[in-house]
Amino acid sequence: MMDRRVPEAVIRRLPKYYAKLSELESQGVIRISSMQFSQKIGFNASQIRQDLNYFGGFGQQGYGYIVQNLRENLGEILGLYSGKSMVIVGCGNIGTALANYNDFAQRGFHIIRMFDKDKTLIGNSINNIPIDDIDSLEEFLESNHVDIGIIAVPKKYAQDVADVFIQKGIKGIWNFAPVDITANNVVVEDVRLNDSLFALNYKMINEIYDY
Amino acid sequence: MMDRRVPEAVIRRLPKYYAKLSELESQGVIRISSMQFSQKIGFNASQIRQDLNYFGGFGQQGYGYIVQNLRENLGEILGLYSGKSMVIVGCGNIGTALANYNDFAQRGFHIIRMFDKDKTLIGNSINNIPIDDIDSLEEFLESNHVDIGIIAVPKKYAQDVADVFIQKGIKGIWNFAPVDITANNVVVEDVRLNDSLFALNYKMINEIYDY
Repeated sequence: MMDRRVPEAVIRRLPKYYAKLSELESQGVIRISSMQFSQKIGFNASQIRQDLNYFGGFGQQGYGYIVQNLRENLGEILGLYSGKSMVIVGCGNIGTALANYNDFAQRGFHIIRMFDKDKTLIGNSINNIPIDDIDSLEEFLESNHVDIGIIAVPKKYAQDVADVFIQKGIKGIWNFAPVDITANNVVVEDVRLNDSLFALNYKMINEIYDY
Repeated sequence: MMDRRVPEAVIRRLPKYYAKLSELESQGVIRISSMQFSQKIGFNASQIRQDLNYFGGFGQQGYGYIVQNLRENLGEILGLYSGKSMVIVGCGNIGTALANYNDFAQRGFHIIRMFDKDKTLIGNSINNIPIDDIDSLEEFLESNHVDIGIIAVPKKYAQDVADVFIQKGIKGIWNFAPVDITANNVVVEDVRLNDSLFALNYKMINEIYDY
């Protein structure tokens, strides 16, 4: 599937729909109207319908959505459960937290190796993920297929790590270093804690509770 | 200031404008056209103008923006440097990573105390932030003004921590547990790593490199 017209904001809402549907499914909900779904998730019903229409709709007038069906369709659109391999560079607190987060593997995103330059860590493992020497990263990427490279190093090393990922053909970079990564024809997803904190603060100042 | 009409997407872009302007300012850039700014930040120029118009504009036709001026104005709108106090509950990898992230304090967000239930951690400190017993959280919040409560505990404890925050009058919750927090008249900002990873994956599948 190839659809460049889906706006960024819609892409950002898809995982939220997916998460809420998973929750409803685990609660045994079979069917939900767009109005009920709207109340559960806090977006308005017409926006939900409009968002889902980018992908074919899925609902039926006056009937609503079959929860499991919509969850599975969104999972497919998001490319979940298709078996993606990831590596983490940096075994500090962020890298360790990510390695311990089992939810990724449950969705089909497998962390297959970690890398660090700290010789005392090399040979150890975190959550059964082996830690290798950063010097062996290039070789590892040459002999193993890796879809997503995770950057969890201090910001001064972030671009160097990204350059290795790009050079070795990785197509997605998940960047936790607080710095811009320059990359062409590679998807870079930055997790910027400042942005999140500043948005929180803006809403507090302006007493916005309802998004 | 009280403006409920500013859309969520605009609020989310403000911190990105702020970050890019800070970077430009540190590079010695004095003035920038909306077109140049657009190229630097990757949003289109009319969107930037439209976003800034929610707050009065700041630019001049045919002249552009004074970088420092716009950065300062956005900093004020975002409520930076006004001295906010925060506490972290949970001293695992995420809590520790946040405590070590000095950038928050530089923007006026001060972590004044951490809490954990692990008795071996209590009395220690991380990045000069003392760790107290979770049992003393309520008392601490009664005798100290805290603006933002950070949840960095496993998901099964997240709502309990949130309930204490809310009961003690905290107005903003920054939630790193992968679970929905229920709160009225409190701003909750969830950091959901799955959402970020799934959006990255969607863009990879669809070869979307240009947002």
